[in-house]
Amino acid sequence: MNSKLNFVLAESALELVPKEILRSPAVASDSRRRGVDGSRILLDRSLHHSAMARLRDSEKRGRPDLVHAALLSVTGTPLYLDGSVRVFIHTNQDAVLELAERTRIPKSYFRFRGLAEKLLSERSDEGLVKAYGAGIRELLRRKVSPGRTFGLSVQGRQTGPEELAKAIMAEKNPCVVVGGFPHGHFAQETLALVDELVRIHERPLEAHVVASRVVYEVEKAAALTND
Amino acid sequence: MNSKLNFVLAESALELVPKEILRSPAVASDSRRRGVDGSRILLDRSLHHSAMARLRDSEKRGRPDLVHAALLSVTGTPLYLDGSVRVFIHTNQDAVLELAERTRIPKSYFRFRGLAEKLLSERSDEGLVKAYGAGIRELLRRKVSPGRTFGLSVQGRQTGPEELAKAIMAEKNPCVVVGGFPHGHFAQETLALVDELVRIHERPLEAHVVASRVVYEVEKAAALTND
Repeated sequence: MNSKLNFVLAESALELVPKEILRSPAVASDSRRRGVDGSRILLDRSLHHSAMARLRDSEKRGRPDLVHAALLSVTGTPLYLDGSVRVFIHTNQDAVLELAERTRIPKSYFRFRGLAEKLLSERSDEGLVKAYGAGIRELLRRKVSPGRTFGLSVQGRQTGPEELAKAIMAEKNPCVVVGGFPHGHFAQETLALVDELVRIHERPLEAHVVASRVVYEVEKAAALTND
Repeated sequence: MNSKLNFVLAESALELVPKEILRSPAVASDSRRRGVDGSRILLDRSLHHSAMARLRDSEKRGRPDLVHAALLSVTGTPLYLDGSVRVFIHTNQDAVLELAERTRIPKSYFRFRGLAEKLLSERSDEGLVKAYGAGIRELLRRKVSPGRTFGLSVQGRQTGPEELAKAIMAEKNPCVVVGGFPHGHFAQETLALVDELVRIHERPLEAHVVASRVVYEVEKAAALTND
């Protein structure tokens, strides 16, 4: 690995409240309490559950908490703090948040929420976190251009995390794709972009656990290479 | 390691708003917005910063977000999900939250906050999370009774995480103590209870990163032993 590790949280359950449910009682009361227009509020199952039933793919949506946990687990690692991981959050609505090198994510959920709401509402190509519209294909093909893309999924072939890290280290511009959603599997579009689909444990693991283990093993493999 | 791994998050920055600042504007407005009495609200630097300056040890307090992240990083691991980790949260006000085996912590910060507020307000010796008063000494001596206690701190001797995991595995009833606060060091009382003070990286790492790496390495060492 001569370059950085690209880390993509794909199809992430991070979006603003969609139009269909802006007038639902759950969203309206949240909007009133916060004094923020519903269209600028993050969809959150823990607050808007009753309104979410009628959304398409409802079970994969509205989990900013999960996205937050996964981002913290990556951005707290020495590999990231050394500037060796590029982080992209691709959302289920085809927005992308791209972190500038070593940018820290607020650990407070309130601050993370405020940041995500601002980025998704206003989109911006400046600042420490860029926000722009792009599907997973466009993100991978145009922005990341990886030599090899490793997708993490329970549908993948089981491999040891150390082995996976070795395979990642053997690539010039490797990319790891982890699902940023709570249930279900990658969409066909995402699967078509993945060169190797693997799982690192017999249990299904949460995104933040997968992310922290993969980054950690790559960090260890990189340290060995540098010795 | 014949028994479970004991994991203690010590001196955690998790407490209800203390009396001294109940009437501060920051707390009063938070209380009004939520419709909850200030004395039953978690102290949170991201909301009560302006009022916190006059608290003793202010810089170590009011970080429930950090406690939440550390707990998620432990309770999401297969070792924990297999029932092989006992988790205790000791707070800076000498309360203890004790998780029953395999108990999951809400990933949503709102739900975590509600749970912690209820537990700290009401204390209970029943349910999936027990809450009781105990100092770190009482917790370790009476509840955990570890064969050996490993403290994680930047003040400790540097060791590899794999080596640390091996030392942990060599003990019958090992205990790992990680600081649940953002800055500063363990109190003297905590240090006096630690048999080995170690650090696992040259960088200071956040509690959730330390926790996830230590548990992961113990999990790997345990899998080797069981093979």
